[in-house]
Amino acid sequence: MTRRYAILAPGHFATDAKTAHGVIAYGREPVVAVIDPDCAGRRVGDVLPHLASQAPIVADLGAARAFAPTALLIGTAPKGGALPASWRATILEALAAGLEVVSGLHDMLGDDPEFAAAARTGGSSIWDVRRTPAAPIFSGEVYDLATPTVLLVGNDCAVGKMTAALEIVRAARARGVDADFVPTGQTGIMIAGWGLSIDRVVADFAPGATESLVLESARRGSELIVVEGQGAINHPAYATVTLALMYGSAPDALVLVCAPRRSAIEGYSTPTLGYRELIDVHEALLATVKPAPVVGIALNTRGLSDDLARAEIARAIAQTQLPADDVVRFGAERLTAAMLPAIVRRPPLRASVPA
Amino acid sequence: MTRRYAILAPGHFATDAKTAHGVIAYGREPVVAVIDPDCAGRRVGDVLPHLASQAPIVADLGAARAFAPTALLIGTAPKGGALPASWRATILEALAAGLEVVSGLHDMLGDDPEFAAAARTGGSSIWDVRRTPAAPIFSGEVYDLATPTVLLVGNDCAVGKMTAALEIVRAARARGVDADFVPTGQTGIMIAGWGLSIDRVVADFAPGATESLVLESARRGSELIVVEGQGAINHPAYATVTLALMYGSAPDALVLVCAPRRSAIEGYSTPTLGYRELIDVHEALLATVKPAPVVGIALNTRGLSDDLARAEIARAIAQTQLPADDVVRFGAERLTAAMLPAIVRRPPLRASVPA
Repeated sequence: MTRRYAILAPGHFATDAKTAHGVIAYGREPVVAVIDPDCAGRRVGDVLPHLASQAPIVADLGAARAFAPTALLIGTAPKGGALPASWRATILEALAAGLEVVSGLHDMLGDDPEFAAAARTGGSSIWDVRRTPAAPIFSGEVYDLATPTVLLVGNDCAVGKMTAALEIVRAARARGVDADFVPTGQTGIMIAGWGLSIDRVVADFAPGATESLVLESARRGSELIVVEGQGAINHPAYATVTLALMYGSAPDALVLVCAPRRSAIEGYSTPTLGYRELIDVHEALLATVKPAPVVGIALNTRGLSDDLARAEIARAIAQTQLPADDVVRFGAERLTAAMLPAIVRRPPLRASVPA
Repeated sequence: MTRRYAILAPGHFATDAKTAHGVIAYGREPVVAVIDPDCAGRRVGDVLPHLASQAPIVADLGAARAFAPTALLIGTAPKGGALPASWRATILEALAAGLEVVSGLHDMLGDDPEFAAAARTGGSSIWDVRRTPAAPIFSGEVYDLATPTVLLVGNDCAVGKMTAALEIVRAARARGVDADFVPTGQTGIMIAGWGLSIDRVVADFAPGATESLVLESARRGSELIVVEGQGAINHPAYATVTLALMYGSAPDALVLVCAPRRSAIEGYSTPTLGYRELIDVHEALLATVKPAPVVGIALNTRGLSDDLARAEIARAIAQTQLPADDVVRFGAERLTAAMLPAIVRRPPLRASVPA
């Protein structure tokens, strides 16, 4: 049954409710209301025009229920993934009313005795999207795949790696290539309905879990596997996940996603890397296991004028000699067309097969 | 109360029972017997002279009990950390007999209903060394430490990173530097009695868990923090853990541990990296977050003659211009003396403090 989502994002919808924005923009299931008192009375498209949605924003769950949601989706991904204490009451209210609760937090709502009891009483259920089953150790089976695989990497968290992956998949399909989006984080899983939240996997098994996703995509017969990226290779907290994706997905090519004017990793004073540094550090690491080149750059120029965005794109091209574009502002068609030959024609590079 | 260990390593003691070897060589608690039918009737020191132990090797737990053990320690760390099925009977027998069972496997023995029931019935207990509490996200607090921190890295798993760390700590203490060993894996934890198995931590939290260990060591007032390394930066399965340690411990210096004649990562066909490549890839990665140099090389020349070992050491020095030695064969005094000035005098390099 298709869900009808009410999205909970109090105080965050207009700014950093990344999960809410992703599900509204790309999800296959309708969002019927957003809960955020700060924007109540307006519509999603009024607050965030790029989302092109007319869903109403309301002050609380009571008001949202007028739009007949079947599920309450937690719409933010706070650092560390803990549940804001003030949201408990709304979640309990939803479960009591028979609504499914969908959460991508590290805190597993289903393990909370109060939530579990409320779900039982209300005849509802909890989908903890980040809950991951036991994963295998990386086997190297992925090295035998003939299907070209692309991994998105970036200069920070929250720069649009998932969005770029989804737009590239859409553009590749429009060109007749049966591309498949491989979700590696909670929002991607909510959008695509499958996947694994690699950041939630025990460290030893994170590359193996990533490998299992790529193998699953290949078994579906896709012609191009596009793996959602996470974190950044110089992110002090999340690079662990980035590297698990780099080694575990064994990509044939990388696409770099950059917010070009971000000077430091969000929440840290670690400087972001320039294009050349990013290309060098990713290619140097992959060269130690299975070589893969960066084949294009997706820029996130949000907040800039079209002219300034074009200037940033021109600068990226000049500095790297690679195709570059803002796939949200200008569409992914040109960038995808420019990159595809380098990705699809690339012979599979076997390097590290199990001995 | 001090434990008296019987170590379970059937079929593995003479070869790859890394946990058994580490606990015998460096543990603070006595090993009274080893269980391995393949070597039964001999003594530890007969099979592995470098361990310098006279503990008897016996065929089964019944025979081991003649030496009055208080605990059964699982002495191997199989790939993936699963319990070999044939070991269940011995573990159940130990628990029924009132022996504590100490395990570093990924499989949590305490979560196994049959083992848990046997522990209750036998009045015994299970210490799952790899069980990790919830860890924080990396905060950057470690960047403010004045205590010099050294991380061990290597060209593969199982090359002697833990051993080198323990030997360097011993040599530093002998020189009057109050060095502290920070355990990051199951054997190190069994030896030191504290620590966290970083490979068992959820990927998002692995750097934060590492940071918490370094902060704890600093709070104890140590003058030199020596962090046990894990995996290798080009290990297809375990590099995730290596990177978590590199960013999470925020070292001021690295010590490279190499088995110089190993040509491929164990279990994979990924080529091992040469000294120059290893130095470059580690230093390049750390330069993106907090710079730290490689200051010395500990070689594992086991199996070579003294002459060949000396030739390997000379080759490492010639290729890198760094101090190098085999700290097991020749002692850690010279290497530690040569590295200490570069480590201890190094001013703390602040780079990525939280914004």
